[in-house]
Amino acid sequence: MENHNLHTVGLTVEEIDTPALLLDLDAMERNLAAMASFFASKKATLRPHTKTHKAPILAHRQIAAGARGICCQKLGEAEIMAQGGITDILITNEIVGRQKVRRLMHLARQLRHGRLAVCVDHPANVNELSEAVQAAGVRLDVLVDVNVGQNRCGVAPGKPALELARQVLRSPGLRLRGLQGYEGHCMVKEDEQERRHAFEAAWSLLLETKHLLKREGIDLEEISAGGTGTFEWLVECPEATEVQAGSYIVMDAKYRKVIGETRFACALSVLSTIMSTPDADYAVCDAGFKTITHDQGMPEVKGVAGIEYYLGGDEHGRLRYVDAARRFELGEKIELIVSHCDTTINLYDKYFGVRNGVVEVVWDIAGRGKSQ
Amino acid sequence: MENHNLHTVGLTVEEIDTPALLLDLDAMERNLAAMASFFASKKATLRPHTKTHKAPILAHRQIAAGARGICCQKLGEAEIMAQGGITDILITNEIVGRQKVRRLMHLARQLRHGRLAVCVDHPANVNELSEAVQAAGVRLDVLVDVNVGQNRCGVAPGKPALELARQVLRSPGLRLRGLQGYEGHCMVKEDEQERRHAFEAAWSLLLETKHLLKREGIDLEEISAGGTGTFEWLVECPEATEVQAGSYIVMDAKYRKVIGETRFACALSVLSTIMSTPDADYAVCDAGFKTITHDQGMPEVKGVAGIEYYLGGDEHGRLRYVDAARRFELGEKIELIVSHCDTTINLYDKYFGVRNGVVEVVWDIAGRGKSQ
Repeated sequence: MENHNLHTVGLTVEEIDTPALLLDLDAMERNLAAMASFFASKKATLRPHTKTHKAPILAHRQIAAGARGICCQKLGEAEIMAQGGITDILITNEIVGRQKVRRLMHLARQLRHGRLAVCVDHPANVNELSEAVQAAGVRLDVLVDVNVGQNRCGVAPGKPALELARQVLRSPGLRLRGLQGYEGHCMVKEDEQERRHAFEAAWSLLLETKHLLKREGIDLEEISAGGTGTFEWLVECPEATEVQAGSYIVMDAKYRKVIGETRFACALSVLSTIMSTPDADYAVCDAGFKTITHDQGMPEVKGVAGIEYYLGGDEHGRLRYVDAARRFELGEKIELIVSHCDTTINLYDKYFGVRNGVVEVVWDIAGRGKSQ
Repeated sequence: MENHNLHTVGLTVEEIDTPALLLDLDAMERNLAAMASFFASKKATLRPHTKTHKAPILAHRQIAAGARGICCQKLGEAEIMAQGGITDILITNEIVGRQKVRRLMHLARQLRHGRLAVCVDHPANVNELSEAVQAAGVRLDVLVDVNVGQNRCGVAPGKPALELARQVLRSPGLRLRGLQGYEGHCMVKEDEQERRHAFEAAWSLLLETKHLLKREGIDLEEISAGGTGTFEWLVECPEATEVQAGSYIVMDAKYRKVIGETRFACALSVLSTIMSTPDADYAVCDAGFKTITHDQGMPEVKGVAGIEYYLGGDEHGRLRYVDAARRFELGEKIELIVSHCDTTINLYDKYFGVRNGVVEVVWDIAGRGKSQ
């Protein structure tokens, strides 16, 4: 990749071509500090999920702020993070199949002086991993992934989880580190009571499973769960050891609706240009499906009230004047707070790190598209 | 970029890691041939939209099959296509603002022995372009972009379009090539009668505008419109000179619903692995929001009946057994026909071109993420 960054540092936001992904460095650093301060007095530790930001530099910042290591969702992301110097990685997902297991063994060898763990939810996968680590001469930690109500991956709580844990204990080369119980189905429920009840139901399934294993003589080092929508409740549970929250570092419009901005602020935005003003009722900007995802709703215009973004297709966004104080001018630049940080970041190759309206740094999103 | 492709050519589909974007070369080539055969006897010519595939090699294939040149939606895509050796490019969009106009001038210089055109819908943009081409010592063709009912960009039909055309004629360095009237709002209406009526309403607005200009003494070289959902009707209009259809080359599940598969077949799929089989009612595959877009609906499992893909989040897809003959096995690979080719292709760096189950070629999607 050519390094165009040399010509970009020092530009003002107004000089950045669009659409571009901006990272407000002050806001991001305040988010890091707020999370560090929150965890300073807690027994559980933070293992932030880097599927959100996909940038090794931000993982290093999180570790410097006290995180014990990181989470990745995909093996490809973990490879990028290891290449970026991160040495303690939990892949919060099942790694299945010949090609991926082979790559996982190479990653385990690369991290032999660090820590690497994956999740399992199926006996055949446990066997596949155990055979592979023996053949490769490496060791691997595993967490039994428990379905706590998300109904995606994960073994059923209780006895099925116990049986899988026993299989891991019997499997040469594998070390049972603990349980994962990701309550993804709770995370962005906007009603706080509803979210809390869903969290408590999920947590009780994980806790019962932990107690069952304890009664059966299996002690676990880690109980790993949680996200940005639930971490405050999770750390109050004495059995929780590890929290996987990730979105807090940049935030998005959806999480702002869910948890407010008292602790974390929206640090991420998409810079866009008003490229057409064909009508008194709306304007058109140059950011559509290919640069802003809509899976959690429409983006919001930052700092301008009375404007509604609505669909303009793959490469355009339409901005309806609902109760706006003025009309946009052709060529004007606006910032959009996206509804979902993870999927939007995955569309971009770099962050423009901005402070006081000036580009201070350009960071590669090295994990962009690393979905294998 | 490292060339891993050398190690990939010759692999079987089963050996490709997932998620991966597959292109069935036989189907794609049949689509190219079918479109070429359709246009062979027509007065209008095909200028395929490459916002869909974003790969210069596929643009070359389209031109070799008779297309006169190509369309791009973004300046960044046009730069990639020019770099890939394409010399006749219409940017079907407004290019607004200092940074982009500067880049456009460099592209115009690069294509000075070829053909380059952009669309305009605002007097200020016409002035901006005219001043820039004079300063740069280049020439530029423009099409007046007419709003034919999509209500996105585009000047109003009739007198406003006439006035803008007159301004272009007065503007040094600019050449008025014609009108564009993209009927994007008609394209994927599944009811054929409804789609046809919407198309006819849109076309009549463009035609009236062309006639008005003619009465005012302005002859136009091009009337450019159309897409994969409307091109068969557009070519029956004697005034239409240029057709912008693009999706036909790879197709998707949405267009299959709209126009069927009698002329074009779905050549694109996402290869995915069954990574969890936690329940008798569903399985989980490794392709979610970050590898398959959902803006036109859910993907379909290729060649397997009775399965329903439903949301599993950013990195997972859930597959419900509705009326399936069997259950998926852990580690099994499946192909998903995506609902929207354009936005899904934009998530990938390469196509695996497959014939008879073997990777014959790996093509870079050089325009991926080129949204500026």
